[in-house]
Amino acid sequence: MLRLFPLLLPLLLCTCGPAQENTPTAPRTGPPNVVIIYMDDMGFGDLSSYGHPNIQTPNVDRLAREGQRWTSFYTASSVCSPSRGALLTGRYPIRIGLAGPQKRVFFPDSKGGLPTEEITIAEMLQSEGYATACIGKWHLGHLPEYLPTRQGFDYYFGIPYSNDMDGIKWGLDYLLGPMDTSLWKVPLLENETEIQRPANQFTITKRYTEKAVEFITGQRDSPFFLYLPHSMVHTPLFASEAFQGKSPRGRFGDAMAEVDWSVGEITKALEELGLAENTLIIFSSDNGPWLSMREHGGSAGLLKDGKGTTWEGGMRVPGIFYQPGSVAPGTITDMGSTLDLLPTLAAWTGAQAPTDRILDGFDLSAVLRERAPSPRDHMLFYRKDELFAARRGDYKAHFITATCYRPDNMREVHATPLLYHLHHDPSEVYDKAVEHPEVLAEIQEMVDNHSRTVVRVEAEMDRR
Amino acid sequence: MLRLFPLLLPLLLCTCGPAQENTPTAPRTGPPNVVIIYMDDMGFGDLSSYGHPNIQTPNVDRLAREGQRWTSFYTASSVCSPSRGALLTGRYPIRIGLAGPQKRVFFPDSKGGLPTEEITIAEMLQSEGYATACIGKWHLGHLPEYLPTRQGFDYYFGIPYSNDMDGIKWGLDYLLGPMDTSLWKVPLLENETEIQRPANQFTITKRYTEKAVEFITGQRDSPFFLYLPHSMVHTPLFASEAFQGKSPRGRFGDAMAEVDWSVGEITKALEELGLAENTLIIFSSDNGPWLSMREHGGSAGLLKDGKGTTWEGGMRVPGIFYQPGSVAPGTITDMGSTLDLLPTLAAWTGAQAPTDRILDGFDLSAVLRERAPSPRDHMLFYRKDELFAARRGDYKAHFITATCYRPDNMREVHATPLLYHLHHDPSEVYDKAVEHPEVLAEIQEMVDNHSRTVVRVEAEMDRR
Repeated sequence: MLRLFPLLLPLLLCTCGPAQENTPTAPRTGPPNVVIIYMDDMGFGDLSSYGHPNIQTPNVDRLAREGQRWTSFYTASSVCSPSRGALLTGRYPIRIGLAGPQKRVFFPDSKGGLPTEEITIAEMLQSEGYATACIGKWHLGHLPEYLPTRQGFDYYFGIPYSNDMDGIKWGLDYLLGPMDTSLWKVPLLENETEIQRPANQFTITKRYTEKAVEFITGQRDSPFFLYLPHSMVHTPLFASEAFQGKSPRGRFGDAMAEVDWSVGEITKALEELGLAENTLIIFSSDNGPWLSMREHGGSAGLLKDGKGTTWEGGMRVPGIFYQPGSVAPGTITDMGSTLDLLPTLAAWTGAQAPTDRILDGFDLSAVLRERAPSPRDHMLFYRKDELFAARRGDYKAHFITATCYRPDNMREVHATPLLYHLHHDPSEVYDKAVEHPEVLAEIQEMVDNHSRTVVRVEAEMDRR
Repeated sequence: MLRLFPLLLPLLLCTCGPAQENTPTAPRTGPPNVVIIYMDDMGFGDLSSYGHPNIQTPNVDRLAREGQRWTSFYTASSVCSPSRGALLTGRYPIRIGLAGPQKRVFFPDSKGGLPTEEITIAEMLQSEGYATACIGKWHLGHLPEYLPTRQGFDYYFGIPYSNDMDGIKWGLDYLLGPMDTSLWKVPLLENETEIQRPANQFTITKRYTEKAVEFITGQRDSPFFLYLPHSMVHTPLFASEAFQGKSPRGRFGDAMAEVDWSVGEITKALEELGLAENTLIIFSSDNGPWLSMREHGGSAGLLKDGKGTTWEGGMRVPGIFYQPGSVAPGTITDMGSTLDLLPTLAAWTGAQAPTDRILDGFDLSAVLRERAPSPRDHMLFYRKDELFAARRGDYKAHFITATCYRPDNMREVHATPLLYHLHHDPSEVYDKAVEHPEVLAEIQEMVDNHSRTVVRVEAEMDRR
């Protein structure tokens, strides 16, 4: 363990002493551990517990059944980097330099990253004495100064950007062709050291899982935060040998099955260590399905469109919260967002959320604990640096739309915004703008109020 | 009870005596009771257990969770009358006079009905000493000679055709307008007597439920078959006062909630009578969602199109089987169909299925009992008297397609059939015909073999 987690040693020592003073009101035997499992490009409809007809995810489904299954849970962006930055900071990408006019995500030649002055969940919990690890895909800057180890994580193991980057070419022939891990020169890092290049993608889910269990096991006696953003099920799809060719859903289903196995391994480890009842597990996805990857992309179920769009299919994803004895089981149809994780975890652990900056998240802890109504009553939908859509209560207005089905994205600015009642019409088919101008006016006012709080900064992914 | 079920008296008496001789091999304390709950126009995606984000169906979901939840379960038609005839007889509508070139369903001026020489599940079980009741929407001929009481049911309570028929007008204004039960002059029958016209649709789900519980209670000591085809959630949507305005999904959700309550009442009655472990409950729907009814129609989830079409959304529906201790719980992704209910119930109860005619159903009892592979390896998709599509194994070929989105149905004959891999591509998006001509050839051969067995008869709904 010391070989793997040398940075944790001081923390292990200090959590026995004064760090305890930071959590005097912890309601249970100690501050709860936190595990965030974050999927890549998994859609709203890709879990059996969210209705997929042939993908089997019994381990995730168990968390959904015995915990809370949220059905109006949003990411803050429809693509990787901004979605991840928003989750870790509780702030819209537009506020944290992750939304510019040009590139939408970081690439291997990017110069920027999540600005280090932003405060991540990892930094918040680290300052409370938590041991912290990021195991998986980072995608918030691959240069050393932006790596997880500089953003509050004691330990990092994973790939710094998407698994389809650094390819010898880019195109459907390669992405959907036979599994060949040498086609993408993505590096695998441990802390700040490259340990394999190209990363062997066949075994990547397996190795993330082993590292995650190892981290959990090493931290059994002190609070920890594990952020586990899987590389799967982003195309190109890979699975280790035991899972290849097993799912009726094909390669996408195989990759899903391996991640589900991983969730089972982590749950089992927590149970065997006696930590299950003191660990909050959160399971979600960074954005909707990558529909242009054909059968290798996922499904948004009944929701419209997918990744890269501000239709519901692009940003509404599964959201599952599980902590036996603490999270009240049930389906939650109220709104929630990955933006809410930072303030919720502050409340859940007794940590202090930042007070010197605007946070866009709400504290959902009362919903988790007692199924209280969600404090989140709205959601904003940005694409790059433009506000495309906004939801307030039951209604969502689209000012601009685009699709991911066509190469030109079919961008359209709507002189009269489109307006949908998302509860009556979750698939966004029946425009109610003419019937409800007063709703449009209310949403416009909300958007104006929000926009006045936004200080535009240069996008990190557009830096040269 | 005697006032309500006078026809049952002889059966009640005879089940104590010689009728027992008909079920000498009953594996449990007596032949199992059977309850079939059949929804109207409920889509694949309309239950929470099949992924709907805001319709809550806890009672149905419990059956799905503690029983079997089938995810490739098909009706034999995408519209009411032929779907119901096929369920009751185990035969494709084309064989039983329910598929002609003109009308697709029965109307208030129809002269025909399900031919009485067909053998229904009710007749099969009645001859084994079962008490039988049909409570709900019939839609297989409203003239006395075609009513449930002439088709093997000791008792009938319900409406003889759809709840949108006999209207003062027909149009979206009425169908989607304020709830007014006087707009449709649909009669309510008890046995063969009209007891109310127009039927009060506000309370219809409630009254079906009361009658169903009354029937079950009266039959506690002898085997029974209850066929409960709800009028809901066919447009126009109604709910009784306790359910109005309660669901976030609007009127569709209110009607769904009342049916779910009904399922709970029936389950509870069976439990209180000690019959739960000796009663097989089957829950399904007659066809996919009526999409042209806008927010008043349901959802096929990730499946394509809806009611009236041979796309998956038109004919793949939820299929749930529940009998604690006898049905092995789990999700079944293999194929099944309402066509299979008659042979399955024959095996399940020890009854004798007809041997003098072609049956299109398979015996699913081994799947139910021990999750064996399903014997069903194909499914045929007719629209009226034309075979539009056929599935064999993973692949489905479309020879002709139509949609329900456009008034002209956009009928299209495909010189090269469309071919979809339904497990990899459940939404039927990526045509594989060019890649797999051998699959098309196999499906064509299967279709030819089937077609040779079909003796075309005049459609009952086209009779003048």
